[in-house]
Amino acid sequence: MAVRARLLLAYLGTPFAGWQKQRNARTVQGELERALLRLYKAPVPTVGAGRTDAGVHAGGQVVHFDPPLPIPPRGVLSALNALLPPEVRVLQVAAVSPSFHARRDAVGKRYCYRLAWGPVLPPWEGLRRLWVPVAPDLELLSQALGLATGTHDFRQFALAGHSGRGARGTVRTVYLAALRRRPHGVDLVFEGDGFLRGMVRRLVGAALEVATGREPLEWFAALLSATPPPRVAPTAPAQGLTLERVFYRPRRCWRRLGSHGTC
Amino acid sequence: MAVRARLLLAYLGTPFAGWQKQRNARTVQGELERALLRLYKAPVPTVGAGRTDAGVHAGGQVVHFDPPLPIPPRGVLSALNALLPPEVRVLQVAAVSPSFHARRDAVGKRYCYRLAWGPVLPPWEGLRRLWVPVAPDLELLSQALGLATGTHDFRQFALAGHSGRGARGTVRTVYLAALRRRPHGVDLVFEGDGFLRGMVRRLVGAALEVATGREPLEWFAALLSATPPPRVAPTAPAQGLTLERVFYRPRRCWRRLGSHGTC
Repeated sequence: MAVRARLLLAYLGTPFAGWQKQRNARTVQGELERALLRLYKAPVPTVGAGRTDAGVHAGGQVVHFDPPLPIPPRGVLSALNALLPPEVRVLQVAAVSPSFHARRDAVGKRYCYRLAWGPVLPPWEGLRRLWVPVAPDLELLSQALGLATGTHDFRQFALAGHSGRGARGTVRTVYLAALRRRPHGVDLVFEGDGFLRGMVRRLVGAALEVATGREPLEWFAALLSATPPPRVAPTAPAQGLTLERVFYRPRRCWRRLGSHGTC
Repeated sequence: MAVRARLLLAYLGTPFAGWQKQRNARTVQGELERALLRLYKAPVPTVGAGRTDAGVHAGGQVVHFDPPLPIPPRGVLSALNALLPPEVRVLQVAAVSPSFHARRDAVGKRYCYRLAWGPVLPPWEGLRRLWVPVAPDLELLSQALGLATGTHDFRQFALAGHSGRGARGTVRTVYLAALRRRPHGVDLVFEGDGFLRGMVRRLVGAALEVATGREPLEWFAALLSATPPPRVAPTAPAQGLTLERVFYRPRRCWRRLGSHGTC
């Protein structure tokens, strides 16, 4: 019986030129497909839920592939983790229905942007958290995030090569944009039905402009309006951004074979 | 007035061939001296308190150097962090008396070896924590650590190239060897007046042999005795080990010039 394998992947984006395979660069997909080639002794194409940019991390990237040989999920998990570099870890392997598609079936994503200020962070904190020299005004930061929630045309927050060519263009819905206090700073959590390329980093960049007093809140609001201001939003560095989770609709036709199935 | 600069350094050891400068390898000291060369436009030799091996991390390595130009400590801190790779961070810079010596004045060190088991860790946890497939018996682990405390001849725990050539040979005093429970596993904390090369990793390796039932507690005890057993202790991987702190005696003649002095 044909099954598809679904992986839950965590990675530190620092040493990679992003998720997507490229000819002359080290990418997460490239490392994963290299490990799969060694495991199955055959090329195994993979599909990821989201194309994280260079330097962006993931705590819950979802990937599917069609295994050319039946190997139980637990065997795939330990074999891949032995073959992958330490910056990439497979957290879960499941056997799913061949109709599952990691990218097309995704109905939403959660991103987290981590900020710190004050004393210098040790590297294991700083690898996924951006240190800023000036402490932001948390009230203003919160107000800017509030403006970003809801359904808007986010074209002013998209980077070149954005994903706004489908039926919904550059319109997206942000369900949640919240600030959570942490020992070294704050986490900015974003949940939405989809994000344009660079959108979270430009939302954070613009919110920081407001929260450090360089732009008024009206400038942020205008970026979401039909008459945008001349100055575009700066893009916050990739270092602070993590794709935390991909959401899928529960599907009746899904068969989660779990540890009984084989990948 | 001549002053010496003292740095408190944190680094992820993963990409480095250890602390000590080598001709054809990327080392922490090499990166630091390269940053100092760019800052002062002159070669600046450095002295570290401990020579951490390849892959070993530090949360509190202490380093001294003699600055060829007067730059205030806060300027040195931000300039070095801008010039260093993200895996190396300068946490503090202080101007101290020229008689201070990072290695010779050290009277003790604290190391921590981090262990995990159970579900696979995301890379930001796993970079400094060793994942073991079998959960160790914490009572046996604790008993083995108890045997290691006190003054012993640790020659059976030294790696080749160890530091046992001075007056005290291979005799060291371990003040503390304690187990602390953590969400994903345990931290093993060691404090002592000094550690031979590889000593912490072999103490952990031997304690894990006992705690996973591969050797009896008597074997661990015999490694510390005058009649060691034929089987030596395995060396736990560098990935789990961090030099946490270097201890110095408070000295009346020390002048901590703080932010008033210059480096």
